[in-house]
Amino acid sequence: MYGLIGKMRTTPGDRDKVVAILLGSMGAMPGCHSYVVATDPSEADAIWITEVWADAASHQASLGLAAVHAAIKQARPMIAGFGERFETTPVGGFGLAA
Amino acid sequence: MYGLIGKMRTTPGDRDKVVAILLGSMGAMPGCHSYVVATDPSEADAIWITEVWADAASHQASLGLAAVHAAIKQARPMIAGFGERFETTPVGGFGLAA
Repeated sequence: MYGLIGKMRTTPGDRDKVVAILLGSMGAMPGCHSYVVATDPSEADAIWITEVWADAASHQASLGLAAVHAAIKQARPMIAGFGERFETTPVGGFGLAA
Repeated sequence: MYGLIGKMRTTPGDRDKVVAILLGSMGAMPGCHSYVVATDPSEADAIWITEVWADAASHQASLGLAAVHAAIKQARPMIAGFGERFETTPVGGFGLAA
């Protein structure tokens, strides 16, 4: 499997809007086992996204999906930057959708 | 919800053993929505654990479960240290077990 852990910063006060866009864009994403959106309790404009995909190709392909593409376009003006980013190799666990 | 993203380092060559212990300890964990174990593709002895719980109390209570307690005891001699650790507030997503 292929995993991503990443932190994103929004323009001040826009975190809830970006979270809503991210959650709203999740339709059918082939190869996606987990996609969790979280806010950072210690940083007002930071969002953590943790993802588990069947493989890197599935993740890459998702970026071309119409819904994801539209969400990125909509959220982009409110994205101030990115923080930590870690690629992982998930090997198992609980809560991974089939 | 309450989330944790954490990196653990094992003693050299023991990562697979620790991963097996972690995956084997996951029985009934009340309040757990997601618990994903991943290896780090760029660091031979590093493990990433991403967790989503109903709340911080559920996570805390899990540490007292017999299976979790036994796993911690078994893995401890092979844990060399910890790296990054981030607390998050998951707000939604895909792959969260009920």
